Amino acid sequence: MLEHLFTETVQKTMGEEGYGAWRSISAPDAVSLSFGFPYPDSFPNEELLTAARDLFAEEGDVALQYTGGENAQSLAGIVAEQAARRGVDCDPEQVVLTNGATHAIDVVCRTFLEPDDGVFVEAPTFMGALRLFEGYGADVTGLPMDADGLDVSAMADELAARRDEGRPLPKLCYTIPTFHNPRGVTLPLDRRERLLELAAEYDFVVLEDDAYGELRYDGDPLPPLKALDETGRVVRVGTYSKTIAPGVRTGWVVADGDVAEQIDRMNAGGTNRFTQGVVARYCRDGHYDRTVAAVREAYERRRDVMLDRLESYMPPEAEWSDPDGGFFVWVTLPEGVDTSAMLTRAGEEGVVYLPGEHFYADGRGERSLRLSFSHASPEEIDDGIAALARAAEAAIESR
Amino acid sequence: MLEHLFTETVQKTMGEEGYGAWRSISAPDAVSLSFGFPYPDSFPNEELLTAARDLFAEEGDVALQYTGGENAQSLAGIVAEQAARRGVDCDPEQVVLTNGATHAIDVVCRTFLEPDDGVFVEAPTFMGALRLFEGYGADVTGLPMDADGLDVSAMADELAARRDEGRPLPKLCYTIPTFHNPRGVTLPLDRRERLLELAAEYDFVVLEDDAYGELRYDGDPLPPLKALDETGRVVRVGTYSKTIAPGVRTGWVVADGDVAEQIDRMNAGGTNRFTQGVVARYCRDGHYDRTVAAVREAYERRRDVMLDRLESYMPPEAEWSDPDGGFFVWVTLPEGVDTSAMLTRAGEEGVVYLPGEHFYADGRGERSLRLSFSHASPEEIDDGIAALARAAEAAIESR
Repeated sequence: MLEHLFTETVQKTMGEEGYGAWRSISAPDAVSLSFGFPYPDSFPNEELLTAARDLFAEEGDVALQYTGGENAQSLAGIVAEQAARRGVDCDPEQVVLTNGATHAIDVVCRTFLEPDDGVFVEAPTFMGALRLFEGYGADVTGLPMDADGLDVSAMADELAARRDEGRPLPKLCYTIPTFHNPRGVTLPLDRRERLLELAAEYDFVVLEDDAYGELRYDGDPLPPLKALDETGRVVRVGTYSKTIAPGVRTGWVVADGDVAEQIDRMNAGGTNRFTQGVVARYCRDGHYDRTVAAVREAYERRRDVMLDRLESYMPPEAEWSDPDGGFFVWVTLPEGVDTSAMLTRAGEEGVVYLPGEHFYADGRGERSLRLSFSHASPEEIDDGIAALARAAEAAIESR
Repeated sequence: MLEHLFTETVQKTMGEEGYGAWRSISAPDAVSLSFGFPYPDSFPNEELLTAARDLFAEEGDVALQYTGGENAQSLAGIVAEQAARRGVDCDPEQVVLTNGATHAIDVVCRTFLEPDDGVFVEAPTFMGALRLFEGYGADVTGLPMDADGLDVSAMADELAARRDEGRPLPKLCYTIPTFHNPRGVTLPLDRRERLLELAAEYDFVVLEDDAYGELRYDGDPLPPLKALDETGRVVRVGTYSKTIAPGVRTGWVVADGDVAEQIDRMNAGGTNRFTQGVVARYCRDGHYDRTVAAVREAYERRRDVMLDRLESYMPPEAEWSDPDGGFFVWVTLPEGVDTSAMLTRAGEEGVVYLPGEHFYADGRGERSLRLSFSHASPEEIDDGIAALARAAEAAIESR
């Protein structure tokens, strides 16, 4: 009825899968290694209830008012302090609170992206961000990655070629430099620095998604891109979804002052000041640090089990990444295997995953798949990888 | 640094006041009649804590997971049932949950509005919606109102003139037909029907904002526009901010199936499934109906006091609206008074309000102002109106 009144972008993308469509893949009795969901029992239900009760006791009705109270207002400062521990020097005024990291990416898009603007992403990349960029009508280009993450040299070549040929340069580069989703890799320091040089040379925004940055299990911390940013080109987004719970729906953007101001102005519609107040109380009471330490340990154990079982069970033709943190392992099977087609058999064997094609703008990723070790128990991971190995063997044989 | 990379709309509107800028008007010791905030003590803190505790007990960790649990999933059905009581016949599939009503308006804009698209609004109208439409680069036209709300005949004339002269027709008409913000008026049935006829004839979307519709204190209920909509042109938005608490940040869009599907697809970034679960439990336990009945009574009393004191205290040149529901009274002072200039004196006398100009896209409303009776106590309302009368008398004298 009203279809002809939809925006051009909506009309163009109407037939495509929506945000979250990848969640419909399931097999009721199979172990799910599909989603980047925190594991059951990781959520601090009682601590959050206590924080809510204390919030009401401290602030009375203001806690549920539009503005929130002092706790909600203190959260930007808490985010800034936590950022400082990661090496990002920022004031509370540079923090824009959002309803989670995807909403954070969305308000950054709203501030910068016009239809047909160029966006560089890693290929593969977080499917939620891909859907958002497509929703803005952006022209998305997937750049190659290797075992160290984004191939910055290839990026430099692409930029130079575009400039030489007079083709449009990107306005924004979206990257997950630390514990990449879905590849699990982390960008080394020299590539981080080179990426920022390219941004300055070719005049684009670097959108750094650091959703998993707090969850390192091995190796030394690397500075986030924003910590290395001397020209104000990096806009950083993060979230409490992985460290407290998705249900608090609280994320943030960190950007330089004038950029933060405009992003905040575009962030209309309001964020949840009540859950912001609860999260602030929760952090102030020391629960955040305790929870992050506890979940880090639990995720490390799950990762270790997953990598060990991949080594034990998988056919020799399979390869996978070796993440130092985050939630994901990226598995690549030999040429000729189609992981979307393989999913039915995998479900019958007892495991589901996300086929690689979800993480590409152009349908590549046919022989890859993403495993998440965040949600399943170590025992389930053992069963799941055994099932995956059976499905992979069958798929390799029947090529 | 990155200013030149902002979208055209952001660059054009950078100097303008942002969403919520109107909140900066305050005088610490004055009674605030400025904002449509629910009154202190109206918030069901304990009931919401109990609902959260019960939710955890019932669903365990799923309550804080990305997907939420069965309670969160049941909320669309609860919204549909509550809509049915108001005469709007809809399925849960037609309900798109959002982070409040302004976010609901935002996702509707995202689905329909391109830069320069025409948007008709009532003049005056809700300033938050105005900022959103401006943020989308829309071409906003304020239509005249009278004591019965939107002047639908004037609208018909404007539409006919545009068609005859080949000027662009609007894509969307935003209206608050019931207990209008800021005017407090309610559109009669015949005008509602005429508005829908015009939408069909001139092919535009009617965006019905019914944020206050549950809060009627006098007179018989009128059907919402969506209840009269036979052609699927009405997209309806509502919220629990006024009936439960702003802190639950839960609103909705109701639209016909295919429109709801696209709006949902544009609603990326996630809504708060945890607070949705809490609200669903809260409603299921009967708290919603009890709270609405209680706050309705409390608001009626505040409205009565405000209207009574306006009658008793205000100079004879002043006029004001007589709302049957909602939160607001619209006061108009004689020609030559500037309510923005008057605000300083009003603050000194002991009251603050929102000057009329905030509610117009084009700076009109100079001699009008909005009073909210929702937040102040009856005693404060008495003091506030007395102070307003003194300020108004002084402003009238010094014209």
